[in-house]
Amino acid sequence: MKLEAQWVVGFTDGRGRFHVEVAPQPGTEDGVQVRPEFSIVRPPEDAQLLHALKAYFGVGVVRNDHDGRLAYRVRNVRHLHDVICPFFMKHTLRSRTHVAFLKFRRVVRMMMEDAHHEPDGLEAIRRIAAEMDVGRSR
Amino acid sequence: MKLEAQWVVGFTDGRGRFHVEVAPQPGTEDGVQVRPEFSIVRPPEDAQLLHALKAYFGVGVVRNDHDGRLAYRVRNVRHLHDVICPFFMKHTLRSRTHVAFLKFRRVVRMMMEDAHHEPDGLEAIRRIAAEMDVGRSR
Repeated sequence: MKLEAQWVVGFTDGRGRFHVEVAPQPGTEDGVQVRPEFSIVRPPEDAQLLHALKAYFGVGVVRNDHDGRLAYRVRNVRHLHDVICPFFMKHTLRSRTHVAFLKFRRVVRMMMEDAHHEPDGLEAIRRIAAEMDVGRSR
Repeated sequence: MKLEAQWVVGFTDGRGRFHVEVAPQPGTEDGVQVRPEFSIVRPPEDAQLLHALKAYFGVGVVRNDHDGRLAYRVRNVRHLHDVICPFFMKHTLRSRTHVAFLKFRRVVRMMMEDAHHEPDGLEAIRRIAAEMDVGRSR
């Protein structure tokens, strides 16, 4: 299955999620772990489509998610920085997902500069992450 | 906002719904009404996008839906037959929505031939409609 860039943008406008989790990580120097993630979750009938997305970007994994669904996920910060973010900068999202993407990109760039290991940087990331998920349930 | 065909296909793969309702309609000759509908429901932040879709196809309406969301809907059988179905025949959907679309198109074509006013035709449409929504909730 060969995908086109505009199809990928449209599908991401429909089903894509840009998310940053700031999770407690006891025993580490920072005490927390910052986990950015680009994901698309679909029912198992669309397994082939998720694998086509993985092949399209050349990064990420397709794994089982909740409720028998499948997820295409990219969590590697370098892959997000070098592949996912440049793609969606070149091919602009048309929905409100674009707003979440721009915040997500800020966090990924800060992480590439190791800002999440500084108290100020971590606090800024926390604020951005908290803004990103507003209204997602709709 | 200018949309491209592949974006429209990708967004429909993500959020589009092809549905046929066979509803009781007391007092009419058939006793039922067959209502095919192509729709995309999104939160109010994406109002501009739904209006861009309406402008792209040149048919349908944008209206309030449940829970403060907005819906782009095409219900006119001739518009479905002349505009929506040819578009998605030319630009193939990549997800399982394609399967629902092919069933939907069969119903729309049957309705253009007035098959829904014959008992056999109506029974066939009922069967197709019942198959279409399987698994939609995921």
